[in-house]
Amino acid sequence: TQQLLSGRGPRPKPFRVTNADRSVKKGIMADVLEDLMNKVGDSLSVACVGALVLDEDGTGVDTEEFFQTLPDNAVLMVLEKGHKWTPQTNSPSRDQL
Amino acid sequence: TQQLLSGRGPRPKPFRVTNADRSVKKGIMADVLEDLMNKVGDSLSVACVGALVLDEDGTGVDTEEFFQTLPDNAVLMVLEKGHKWTPQTNSPSRDQL
Repeated sequence: TQQLLSGRGPRPKPFRVTNADRSVKKGIMADVLEDLMNKVGDSLSVACVGALVLDEDGTGVDTEEFFQTLPDNAVLMVLEKGHKWTPQTNSPSRDQL
Repeated sequence: TQQLLSGRGPRPKPFRVTNADRSVKKGIMADVLEDLMNKVGDSLSVACVGALVLDEDGTGVDTEEFFQTLPDNAVLMVLEKGHKWTPQTNSPSRDQL
């Protein structure tokens, strides 16, 4: 009965999360940042998740508030501790909308 | 009698599934990810289905939740175990909306 009043909390959104060398990308659903942080470790076999950043420009997604502003299917990169984001070398009109 | 109340569960959606070298593409209906995984093997003569990924960017579709967010006629690629997604070489205005 505790879930009768739905509409509470954010709804899960789809994200696309890649690893640091962009060799693997996974579709992952998450409702809050912590949820996504937990799931990316398993899904992408990252032992120690250091940070989530936007793939397009390396913007760090550190806060729940900013996380909630991301659109469906935002592309993120998971970084292990000590790793750094690097720009894509060849991206001709990669995410033209 | 358990299925009298229909409307339960996801409705079947159309997908367009290509093989790894994009030489064959098939329209396939599926309601859940497992359903699609089973059907693509037969339809595209893939003996051992390793993964389904989005054709546009190689995002792995591993979870039922993420699968359910895909739109009608999403284009997927079926990969045999050990195979990898590669981007399309010539994609002028590939995902123009």
